[in-house]
Amino acid sequence: MEKSCIILSGGLDSTTLLYDIVEQFGNENVFAISFNYNQNHSKEIYFAEKTCKKLNVNHQIIDLSSISYQIFNSALLKGAKEVPEGHYQDEVMKKTVVPNRNMVLLSIAASFCISNGINNLYYGAHSGDHTIYPDCRPEFIKAMKEVLLLCDWQSIELKVPYMNWNKADIVRRGKELGVDYSLTWTCYKGQELACGKCGSCIERLEAFNKNNLIDPIKYE
Amino acid sequence: MEKSCIILSGGLDSTTLLYDIVEQFGNENVFAISFNYNQNHSKEIYFAEKTCKKLNVNHQIIDLSSISYQIFNSALLKGAKEVPEGHYQDEVMKKTVVPNRNMVLLSIAASFCISNGINNLYYGAHSGDHTIYPDCRPEFIKAMKEVLLLCDWQSIELKVPYMNWNKADIVRRGKELGVDYSLTWTCYKGQELACGKCGSCIERLEAFNKNNLIDPIKYE
Repeated sequence: MEKSCIILSGGLDSTTLLYDIVEQFGNENVFAISFNYNQNHSKEIYFAEKTCKKLNVNHQIIDLSSISYQIFNSALLKGAKEVPEGHYQDEVMKKTVVPNRNMVLLSIAASFCISNGINNLYYGAHSGDHTIYPDCRPEFIKAMKEVLLLCDWQSIELKVPYMNWNKADIVRRGKELGVDYSLTWTCYKGQELACGKCGSCIERLEAFNKNNLIDPIKYE
Repeated sequence: MEKSCIILSGGLDSTTLLYDIVEQFGNENVFAISFNYNQNHSKEIYFAEKTCKKLNVNHQIIDLSSISYQIFNSALLKGAKEVPEGHYQDEVMKKTVVPNRNMVLLSIAASFCISNGINNLYYGAHSGDHTIYPDCRPEFIKAMKEVLLLCDWQSIELKVPYMNWNKADIVRRGKELGVDYSLTWTCYKGQELACGKCGSCIERLEAFNKNNLIDPIKYE
């Protein structure tokens, strides 16, 4: 049986994708990896852990917090200026880009895959992210697929099944899969309750709305 | 003035490359990055620091030691089985491959570049490394160049000027540049003196020999 690894943020997209691959391949051959990079919303990792326990999936948390301030300059990190509010398309949301984060996470996950004989690396990027995040663009993903085929004698296949979906499509799929969305975290602010006002919250609420579903998490 | 960043291991290749770019661009706009990933030969970082002080170049050490055992399975790490001896071409030297190391280091360096408005990323890979290290192959480097142009709205140019050189070519260039090779470390074993027997030492000694030079470091 082929083994698979997924980068699991604990948000809505990657959590749905984890349910998706567990349905396809079973939980024994799936490995989830989450990263702590001092994100404001590090409580997403707590939810990633909860979901892995629920699905009985092997989970690794990789702690980059000691180097994050050295390499990442972003409003998404703890102690940075306030997370901007408003729609994702707004210019101001660009401050929440963490420079080259996804390539860092994917390359570390690829090392983990090679070290553990895993061939498939799943990544929950989707089209809704493209407009402001350079490392969610299809051309970036295509280039990453190529480099991951070449980075070792053992090729890593990067799989991005939701690449052409939007967040509403993902919630629709999650409904079919019975995803427990109460165990996901999306808000960019790491407060007790989700703010409902940042780009991330707005997009999430719209996705539930379009599917005539009520988001099970509480908002401020 | 354009800013440049270099991944500086403290070995012979990247140290020569640092002298090369300092000669071209001056030392004010050059940033060197070294990584601690629990390599057996972590004393190379000490030499990287010495060289940066000598050339008055900004130096960052990024510490990945807390995650290295989680992601890298390799004979090159501290506590692993013995570093194999013999020529690089030998099958047994494959154990010294650190899975996908170079992509991890390059992607972290790219984040540092974007966060600091640096456009050029220098990488000291050369053709002598190809036979056993998948991430030194020209096709890997070509794919990395493409992905680094796309990873952010600000493109990163990956520059690998020694790609088609061998180690003797690099030492020849170093002689022209007046590189102080007493401040470099090559041996894969991190002992007091270089062993002279591992693939890395053998290749280094041959490179000096071909240039009718005497290696200034001491051997066991």
